[in-house]
Amino acid sequence: MRVLSSKVGDHIGKKILIEGFLHKKRMLGGITFINVRDRKGLIQVVISDKDEVEKLRGCQIGTVLKVSGVVKEEPRAPGGFEIHEATLEVMVPVSEELPIEIDKPLSHKPDNLDTLFDNRAIGLRNLFESNIFRTRAYVLGYIREFLVDNDFVEINTPKLVGGAAEGGAEVFKLDYFGKEATLAQSPQLYKQIMVGVFERVFEIGPAFRAELSATTRHVSEVTMLDVEMGFIEGHDDVLKLIESMIYFVLSKLYKDQSGILKQLNAPELVLKESFPRFTMSEIHKLYQEGTGIDVSKEVDLTPDEEKWICNYCKDKFGCEAVFATDLPASKMKFYHMKGEGEVAKSADLLFRGVEISTVPQREHRYDKLVEQMKKIKIDPEHPGFAAYVSAFKYGLPPHGGFGLGIDRLTQKVIGLGNVKEAILFPRDINRLAP
Amino acid sequence: MRVLSSKVGDHIGKKILIEGFLHKKRMLGGITFINVRDRKGLIQVVISDKDEVEKLRGCQIGTVLKVSGVVKEEPRAPGGFEIHEATLEVMVPVSEELPIEIDKPLSHKPDNLDTLFDNRAIGLRNLFESNIFRTRAYVLGYIREFLVDNDFVEINTPKLVGGAAEGGAEVFKLDYFGKEATLAQSPQLYKQIMVGVFERVFEIGPAFRAELSATTRHVSEVTMLDVEMGFIEGHDDVLKLIESMIYFVLSKLYKDQSGILKQLNAPELVLKESFPRFTMSEIHKLYQEGTGIDVSKEVDLTPDEEKWICNYCKDKFGCEAVFATDLPASKMKFYHMKGEGEVAKSADLLFRGVEISTVPQREHRYDKLVEQMKKIKIDPEHPGFAAYVSAFKYGLPPHGGFGLGIDRLTQKVIGLGNVKEAILFPRDINRLAP
Repeated sequence: MRVLSSKVGDHIGKKILIEGFLHKKRMLGGITFINVRDRKGLIQVVISDKDEVEKLRGCQIGTVLKVSGVVKEEPRAPGGFEIHEATLEVMVPVSEELPIEIDKPLSHKPDNLDTLFDNRAIGLRNLFESNIFRTRAYVLGYIREFLVDNDFVEINTPKLVGGAAEGGAEVFKLDYFGKEATLAQSPQLYKQIMVGVFERVFEIGPAFRAELSATTRHVSEVTMLDVEMGFIEGHDDVLKLIESMIYFVLSKLYKDQSGILKQLNAPELVLKESFPRFTMSEIHKLYQEGTGIDVSKEVDLTPDEEKWICNYCKDKFGCEAVFATDLPASKMKFYHMKGEGEVAKSADLLFRGVEISTVPQREHRYDKLVEQMKKIKIDPEHPGFAAYVSAFKYGLPPHGGFGLGIDRLTQKVIGLGNVKEAILFPRDINRLAP
Repeated sequence: MRVLSSKVGDHIGKKILIEGFLHKKRMLGGITFINVRDRKGLIQVVISDKDEVEKLRGCQIGTVLKVSGVVKEEPRAPGGFEIHEATLEVMVPVSEELPIEIDKPLSHKPDNLDTLFDNRAIGLRNLFESNIFRTRAYVLGYIREFLVDNDFVEINTPKLVGGAAEGGAEVFKLDYFGKEATLAQSPQLYKQIMVGVFERVFEIGPAFRAELSATTRHVSEVTMLDVEMGFIEGHDDVLKLIESMIYFVLSKLYKDQSGILKQLNAPELVLKESFPRFTMSEIHKLYQEGTGIDVSKEVDLTPDEEKWICNYCKDKFGCEAVFATDLPASKMKFYHMKGEGEVAKSADLLFRGVEISTVPQREHRYDKLVEQMKKIKIDPEHPGFAAYVSAFKYGLPPHGGFGLGIDRLTQKVIGLGNVKEAILFPRDINRLAP
């Protein structure tokens, strides 16, 4: 029976079998030390028998091994234990040297993303890299836990859609049995329709963006969390929803997965249950007072302002998440609800210096919605919008929701320089493989 | 504070507020009975005050309501309680009659799928329909619970891929910033690469199929569960994995969600922890003995054979799931492992009369894999395969896995006639909307 590296300590003094990948090999005199990597981590093996050492000749990193030996305590070994009197069986030999090193804690080279992604299939075997994606999987799990516990029903909506996009950035188009289809940029229309069915829904899935201005900074395929909640009393309910979700997910992650986050050098979490809220104009004013830079003519927050207000709130309120509320009506989408004056009932959620989500109340009144669509020349009777509009015609309650990029959130949690580092196989204007 | 329909019974004799959609309206003398639908179900409301009844004049099904009143026990009402002395507030009026009825337990009309899907945005508000998708969400949740508990790490792999597909059916193609991209038919290559990273991985996401032979029976976008497991001792480990997963998910579903399944008239579950296993030729033989029909020349199981063997195992072993093992080598994909003689190390899992998954061991040996690729004229050095092949070159352990259609599984669990009925917004050769 195979023992996993995390359980080796349960068998001190006993002979066990481990299986895994040769991760590191060092020779010291006649003795060979190897690290074997399995799904739980590393285990150090000491091989002194000449015949056994001989079996490893020519075996490169990646070689798949069965190792039998006796467990000894060894504080200097990863995990605190070591396998002695080892005998080996090479299950799958690797004869060629790896194109990149994977046994350094930081083979990860954010300054050379092309090398990172060109060698992705092997580079992910580095523990720093794989811990990024373990963290991401935990984030996904905790998000679902929070939403399911709060009565949200998971849905899957189509990614192939007929013609109509919800406006904004460019879309990928394709031939669909002689018709034109586009790849969904978001499940926006579908999740609103589903409020009429389940009140509360969420989806985690891919979203596609063919921005004309695409550079290697843009990612053309992302994993989005989409959430929508009906029967809200007002915009505040939506802000509270994302606030409590983010607080739950990050608190749990930092509590239950602190070991992984430490290995990743993730920044310490500075978060309160209630995030500070400032209107856009209040932030402009605070920023100008704090830095002397005049931003009164900006419609949006500048990137530097986003960083500044997050640091300000971290220092002043002990919270590195902050809402920028009362976004300008000029930046509204047709499905957002207008507020009093020239603002939308919409807020940006900023975290560690960047916007991670836009959190609006939707326009749920049929007449107003149709009016807002026509204003920007969208035909409510277009086949791509007919079902959407009918959901409002036959009754939708006040509702709101948000989209949240899983890649972006993972990036910011760990403190990675580029969002692509949090995507297994990223896609940009130049990159379609691996 | 709003009380949900499921909690109304906690407030007998007290005045409460409920919110929801007008789902049914009947007038009996001067008294009006309405059903209000919220995310937990229905609650019956009795309105006797003339002014209150008047507020509902012209209000059609779908109207969003706030209702205050006193809770009384009433065994004949849905849920066993009723709201009396009701006062109303119309939050969102609906003035037009719905294009389809949604208050019948079976507005669902499997004989007219076009009507069903043309009106999908509203039709899903029928409780039968929405219960299908509640069941589906539970299935998704239980699958993840099982896999995460067994050390499988959730991954998201790209749906936009460069040129190379893993062979087989036709793919959707699109222009990707001047290059040709295809939509992923499955995460096959990526999940195998990830065995080298996490040993055990899974993904739940969309898969796209542009079959040239497409008819309205074919679905062009499905939600797939993909699972891959490394360090197996043999093919048997993979069969045991899917067997224990299916047993866990279905047992839990039938135990914890029996109410919903009853409302859906789902067939009773007849399942054992170990599923019967027969080779293809044994099934041919049993079928011929049982029916007198000669299938000795068939390579595959015929549709009738699949039904027959499931019924046979249900009657004989008390298990409506069965493995058909030793699939013919002639039907192997290049990444499957060949067995002894003219068979592949691959099995079909049949459940309630249809194949729900193919469960192979993979060829993990680099030389053999390259040989199998070349044999069917796939160039292992093609950029779309380079990363995949490198994962083997640098060591992958024996592994296997499977894909399982979430739509198909939901269909068979509930006993729906067509797989599309288990998809919120299905896609076929004619249908791209809603």
